[in-house]
Formats: sequence, structure tokens, C-alpha cells
Amino acid sequence: MTAEDRITEVLRRLDTGQDDARARLFELLRIPSISAQPAHAPDCAAAARWLVHEFAAIGFETALRETPGHPIVTGYYPGPDPATTGATVPHVLFYGHYDVQPADPLELWTSPPFEPQMVEGPHGPRIVARGAVDDKGEVVAFLCACRAWYLATGSLPIRITLLIEGEEEIGGPNLDHFMAEHRAELKADIALISDTNMWDIATPAITTQLRGMVYVQIDLVGPSRDLHSGSYGGAVLNPINALTRILGDLHDAEGHVKIPGFYDGVAEVPPAQAAQWEALGFDEAAMLAGIGLSVGAGELGRSALEKLWARPTADLNGIWGGYTGIGAKTVIASEAHAKLSFRLVPGQNPETVLAGLREFITDRTPPGARITLQEFGGNPGVAVPTEGPFMSAAIAALTDEFGKAPVLMGCGGSIPVVGSLKSLLGLDTILMGFGLEDDQIHSPNEKFEWRCFEGAARSHARLLGKLGAMT
Amino acid sequence: MTAEDRITEVLRRLDTGQDDARARLFELLRIPSISAQPAHAPDCAAAARWLVHEFAAIGFETALRETPGHPIVTGYYPGPDPATTGATVPHVLFYGHYDVQPADPLELWTSPPFEPQMVEGPHGPRIVARGAVDDKGEVVAFLCACRAWYLATGSLPIRITLLIEGEEEIGGPNLDHFMAEHRAELKADIALISDTNMWDIATPAITTQLRGMVYVQIDLVGPSRDLHSGSYGGAVLNPINALTRILGDLHDAEGHVKIPGFYDGVAEVPPAQAAQWEALGFDEAAMLAGIGLSVGAGELGRSALEKLWARPTADLNGIWGGYTGIGAKTVIASEAHAKLSFRLVPGQNPETVLAGLREFITDRTPPGARITLQEFGGNPGVAVPTEGPFMSAAIAALTDEFGKAPVLMGCGGSIPVVGSLKSLLGLDTILMGFGLEDDQIHSPNEKFEWRCFEGAARSHARLLGKLGAMT
Repeated sequence: MTAEDRITEVLRRLDTGQDDARARLFELLRIPSISAQPAHAPDCAAAARWLVHEFAAIGFETALRETPGHPIVTGYYPGPDPATTGATVPHVLFYGHYDVQPADPLELWTSPPFEPQMVEGPHGPRIVARGAVDDKGEVVAFLCACRAWYLATGSLPIRITLLIEGEEEIGGPNLDHFMAEHRAELKADIALISDTNMWDIATPAITTQLRGMVYVQIDLVGPSRDLHSGSYGGAVLNPINALTRILGDLHDAEGHVKIPGFYDGVAEVPPAQAAQWEALGFDEAAMLAGIGLSVGAGELGRSALEKLWARPTADLNGIWGGYTGIGAKTVIASEAHAKLSFRLVPGQNPETVLAGLREFITDRTPPGARITLQEFGGNPGVAVPTEGPFMSAAIAALTDEFGKAPVLMGCGGSIPVVGSLKSLLGLDTILMGFGLEDDQIHSPNEKFEWRCFEGAARSHARLLGKLGAMT
Repeated sequence: MTAEDRITEVLRRLDTGQDDARARLFELLRIPSISAQPAHAPDCAAAARWLVHEFAAIGFETALRETPGHPIVTGYYPGPDPATTGATVPHVLFYGHYDVQPADPLELWTSPPFEPQMVEGPHGPRIVARGAVDDKGEVVAFLCACRAWYLATGSLPIRITLLIEGEEEIGGPNLDHFMAEHRAELKADIALISDTNMWDIATPAITTQLRGMVYVQIDLVGPSRDLHSGSYGGAVLNPINALTRILGDLHDAEGHVKIPGFYDGVAEVPPAQAAQWEALGFDEAAMLAGIGLSVGAGELGRSALEKLWARPTADLNGIWGGYTGIGAKTVIASEAHAKLSFRLVPGQNPETVLAGLREFITDRTPPGARITLQEFGGNPGVAVPTEGPFMSAAIAALTDEFGKAPVLMGCGGSIPVVGSLKSLLGLDTILMGFGLEDDQIHSPNEKFEWRCFEGAARSHARLLGKLGAMT
């Protein structure tokens, strides 16, 4: 077969194998692999085993690797026979994650989060389930692309190493250690990750800039027990008052974060990049309308894309304390708690941000309040190169598939592993993802357009072919 | 029998009837009459029926009166035969409440909140249960005093009207209407309430000043759904950020409440009263040590008793929103909520405080946030006369029982009915209660010292005797 015949056959197999692909993805989606909740640890292990089995079935040497937390799935495919393809072929490390976010609030789901459904939407059928796109759908699209190559040609055209973890949604506490311990095994030419968005349903994208994150829980304890607000109110520390007073001071009137040193190392967007983003014609009003809002927020005088892609944030992700039931209870709670995270941009140091936060809190802690900070991982923002042969192959694959060149964009989210792949393994990463902004990841009714899933599988198949032809 | 013989016999009956009294109180404590929680409505009705039955058994005409919420128990005892005691006898309206606070957090109770226990403490045995003192224990002490009179002498020495509600802990939404509708039936000479504290275990007290309250729930809605903090953070309204920013601004650096007009009508404590309170030698350090604190809080430059009895407050009683489970979830919640209450002092108008709060919130509501206020009742602070024949009788009864005169004190808590009794029925109130500061009302492990319960029953019995002798 010629290279062209082969990719034609691979794509044909993907097109005719959609029922099989969907059944495969639904199997994985039915496993509630919520990494944040200890009760779901067995489900995380089950999802890992599922991947071990599926990739082994198409010629990968796979393994389930224990960690102090949830297991990591590794795999290795040695490439086609060197005799027929040349001495070396490109070696790609594919990273993904099988864990998902908690599904609450459950009552807002239209169907149970771990009972995947095909639902008709404006772009045709879509899959509704927790993890539909983030990241199970993306990983299974890659699996299906490999599978189609394997079935159509008897082998995959390049060398592939798999690294699929189960703790991405909780900050990946064990991944860096694993990568550092297994540097030789994880050696490759380039990393590939599918965990980002397209520009829109018709326009592919490669993400070249990611925000990092620092995530903490703040626990404030005051009186040793809950108190009657009549008997004590006005004369003793109220932990909820104290916590809201501290956290309510996080931003100034113009939306800047007031933590000391927070903006150290944050650069303005270079004019060329700003112009490129401006040219994208991002529709802020439509973005806001999609979430029921008509006005933006955040730092005064900056564009929405700049705020999302190139500016750091301080967002409270949860807060709780005292009486939260129906009606009135006149209690002064003994404790108050909050979860707080910062999105970081390239140049910011997570340690500096944490140190600044500690200083910020200490400066505002009233007498009698005992505050502790629990840290849930931190990682810097990352920028990846926008040129090179691998990036060119990815751009060409997406262009072939979608009939237009991908947008090179920033991303407001964090994929900490991108920084680790660079610092620990020396690898640059191609971030080629197929989600849409309205996929409701981390929210009720997360979905993945079937059209995007198919585009993902076909694009990965094309990319494998282009990389195989690079030798 | 002489008057002296009669009270001696009544007190003897109380002393020998302690097992019976305890069994009676335990019956009532086992009914989980939590007024705030709709699921417990049948329990509220059961507690009301229990009282109807118990007071009927000692000669009261009792009735269970339906309201739009939980029922009110009324009762009437016409007094002894006029032929033997003179044309008229004093007429006392006894007010109490059978409802209790929610019991959460359940895990902090040493025994189940609705399975009362006798536990040995530093002052002898104590009853541990939700409602042990607030207000079931106090009501049953009065019941036992009446019962002892009835059994010892065949009748009660005065006329008594009962008014025992089931919505005190939720702001009594239906009581005022009931009182206004039944003015004639509730006519009396003086009101008597047992729902306050002693000065200490050896020193009785009559409360002459109470704080009022305004209680609201604040609901802030932003985006129409939960969002991924990476995809949206920095460019859209975060409801938890917004709510903490508003509520964190409630106080200035010196502890004053910043709501416009909040201090309108708040008077300084008259020098004579301030001197009297000063002379009480209140041990602020001991109060703080009892709740695990070593420093006070609140308005700068004011004494603890002044802050507790004569200064208004703004306390957050609960707050919630976003992810509150284990670990990290990078969500921007769609909504955030808080419960906020204000303790008011005489002179403050609840409507003015509410209007000021609305203005305060409106001034700080960021674009895109929709805020609603749910009100859970409001009532002004109250001061009651410290002189007159009824007050003299109460002081004498307590002095006889405890061997020392009662302290005339303020109270940081709210008993809204005191204001209503005055405004709707023209009645002054004697607040003669037997709780202790460390009774942990509204907290886990609420307790009532048995010694205080006995002192309560015996003091009520003495007061009935003194009032009966007033004719």
C-alpha cells in the first residue's frame, strides 16, 4: 500500500467503526473514576485496568504502575518493522488522564453522570457523561486512531510511549516523582496531549500557552465549639466573619490581586501575539451569554482573551461554615473553611505565590484565629514552541482533516504535566485537543460532540501517518 | 394550712418528686421538635400535645392551637376559689417554647441529642440533650412547680395563662398574629418567662435588658451554571469572591458595623447602669477560656459585658458555595449563600437595619450578580422595668431560694416575645431563668445542671406562693 492508500484505509475503518468506538468509550465512562474522593479509588484502578487491556489488544506492552495514589498506565509500541520503514521513526509520548472531576451537584444532571447517553444537539449527537471529553473521550479518540492503524495495516507507523495518569484532577501529586524515576523509559522525541479545546466546532486549534495553578484549602478555627450568637455575639471572634474579611480583600477595586509579589514575573502580552489574538475576533458577549451573563469581570482595561490566557487569577472554589440548612440558626460557628486557587501565567513562580498568600493571610489574621493552609499542588504556567517539524505535522494533519489551518491559541486552564514533561524529560508538547468551550467540563452535563470525537480520532490517525512519513 | 406550711409542703413534694420530674422532662426531650426543619413538623406537634396533656392533668384548661406553622399551646388556670382567697388574685401569663435548635453537627455530641442522659459533672448530675435547658427544661421546671402546688394544696394559688409556642428558634413567624387575634384571652397582669441565665451556679438573676434580632439569608447568583475555573477564571464573575467581598466589608478596622444608619438610636449605657455592671466583676478571661480563646473581639474600647448586653452586632451564622468536599475541584460556582444576623439593642429599629443592609449590599453588588434577601423575622431590643410589686415578688422568691439577691442583668440573646407582650398585650415581663453560660445551648452537648433545674422548680413554687399572698 502507498502512504496515501494506508491513511485512506485507516480513515475508512474509523468511519465504519463508530458504533464500536462509542461502545468502547461508554465502557470507560461508566467507571466513576473520581480521583478526589477516596471511596472511588477502586474505580480509578478499574479505569486504569481498562486502558491497560485496550492498548495491549493493539500491540502495546502495557503496565499498571502503582503509586502512593491512583495507578499510572504506561505502554510502549516499538514502531513498525525497522527493515521496512528505515532505521528510526519518530517517537511520541502520549499523555492523558483517566480520572474525572466529582460529579456534584448531582441534581443538576439531566441523566446520571456515569450512565453515558447519546443526546441529539445542534451539532448532531453528543455524549453526555462526566469525563465525556475531559479526558476520557480524548484518550479513547487516540486509542481508536491507533486501533484503526493496527487493524488496517498490522502495525502503528511510529514509536509510541503511553503515560496515562489518574490524578490529573487533583493536581497530579505522584506523577512528577514517577516521571523522574523513569526518565529512560519515558524518553521520546515529542509529547502529545489531547486535553484542550478547538477554536470552534469547525476550526481546529493547537494550544501553545497554558496557565498554571496553585490550589489551597484555608481552615480557620476560632472558639473551641459552636456558640450561641446571642450569648457571645459582639465580644468574641466569629470565624466566618474573619474568613470573609480576609478573603474579601483578595482583590482591589480594579480587579488586581492584592497578594504581595503576585504579579512578579508576569509579562505583558507581546504586541505581535496580542495582535494575533485580537484578529481571532473572540466574541466575549457570546461567551458571557452562554453562561447567563451580560457583563464581564476581572482586571479593568484588559480584553477577555488576555484575561483568560495571559493574566493570573484568584478564584474561591468553595466556602463553608456554620449553619447551612433551611431557615435560621443563631450560631457562631467554631470553624470556617474555603478552597482557593490561583491560575498562574508563564513567569510566575508557584512558591512565590504561596509565600505571598501566607503573608497576605498572616497580615489579616485577627487575634484568636488559628489558620492552616492545606496545599493541593502547584505548577507554573507554560508556553510551548510554535514551530518545528512535529508542530508542522500536527498543523498539517488538522488542516487536512478540517479544511482549514488550526488556530494557535492560549488556554486558561492548567495542564501541569506540560511543565514537567519539559523540565523532567526535556520534551516539548503538542496540545491538540478537540473539546469545545460549551462542553461543561467540571460542571453538570459535561458533553463531547460526536462530531468532535470523530474529528479527534481522524486527526490523530492523520498525525500518526504524517509522523510515520517524517523519517 | 398557713401560707408558710403550704410552701413548705410544696417544696417537700418537689424534693421528694425528683425522679418523677426527671422522667417527665426526659419524655419531652426525646421528642426531636426542631422547628427549623420541615421533616420535624410532626415532632413539634407531638411536643405540643405532650404539654397539652401535662398541664391538663393539673387543672389547666389546655388547647392545641393550629397556626400556619407549628401549633401553639394555650392553657388557663382560673385560680383558687375566690371565696377563700379574696375577690381577685394576680394573673400571670407564662410564656415558653417547646421547639429546639437543629442538633448538627451530630458528630460532636457525646450522646445522641434526643436521647437525654444524666451525666455527672462538677456541679453534680446534669442533663445532656438538645433542649435540656433551652427551653424544655425551663418549661418543665415551671410545670413541676405548678404540679407540686396542685398535688400539695389541691389548687394553684394564682390565675395562670399559658402561652407555649413552637417557633421560637425560627423567629416566631406566627406568634404575633396569634397574640393580636387573642388579646382578650391572653389578658393578664404580668408575663413570666424562664429562658435566660443565672449569674452563676450559686447566684440567681433576673434579666432586664434583651437584644433584638434581624436574621437574613443572602443568595448571590452569577453564572447560570458551575464553570471550570481555567476556562473562565479571571474574565467572569465569581459568586463566592463577590459574596466574601461584600460580607468581608461589614466591619471597619475598629469593629464597628459599616451598614448605613446601623447605630441610629443606639444609646450609651447610663453611667449608673455601667457602674452596676462594672461592679459585677465579670471575668472576661474566664468566659474566653471556656471557649478556647484568650483574646476578645468586637468593638474597640468597650467592655465585654457592654458588648454583650448593650451593643449591636453583625454575625455571619453560615456560609456556603462551590466545592466543599475532600481535595481540590477547580470550579467557579454558580451561586454563593450566607446567613447573617444582627443582634439589636433598645433604640434600634429592625426595619431601619434591614433597609441599611439592603443599601449596603446594593452599593457593593458587582455587575452581573443577582442578590436576593430572605428575611427570617426581626424584633427590636427590649428593656423591662426593674421595679414594681411583681418584680419585688420575684426578687424575694429568688432571694429565699438561693440565700442571696438576684443580679439584675442584661442578656445578649433575643426573646422577641418580650417586645410583643408589651406592644400587643401591654404586659411587662419578668425574665427569671436558670441556665448557665456554659450550658452550650444551640451547640452540641447542650446541658442543664440538675441543681439548676431543682432551683428553678423551687423558685417558681416560691414565686407562685408570694404572688398568691399579694392579694
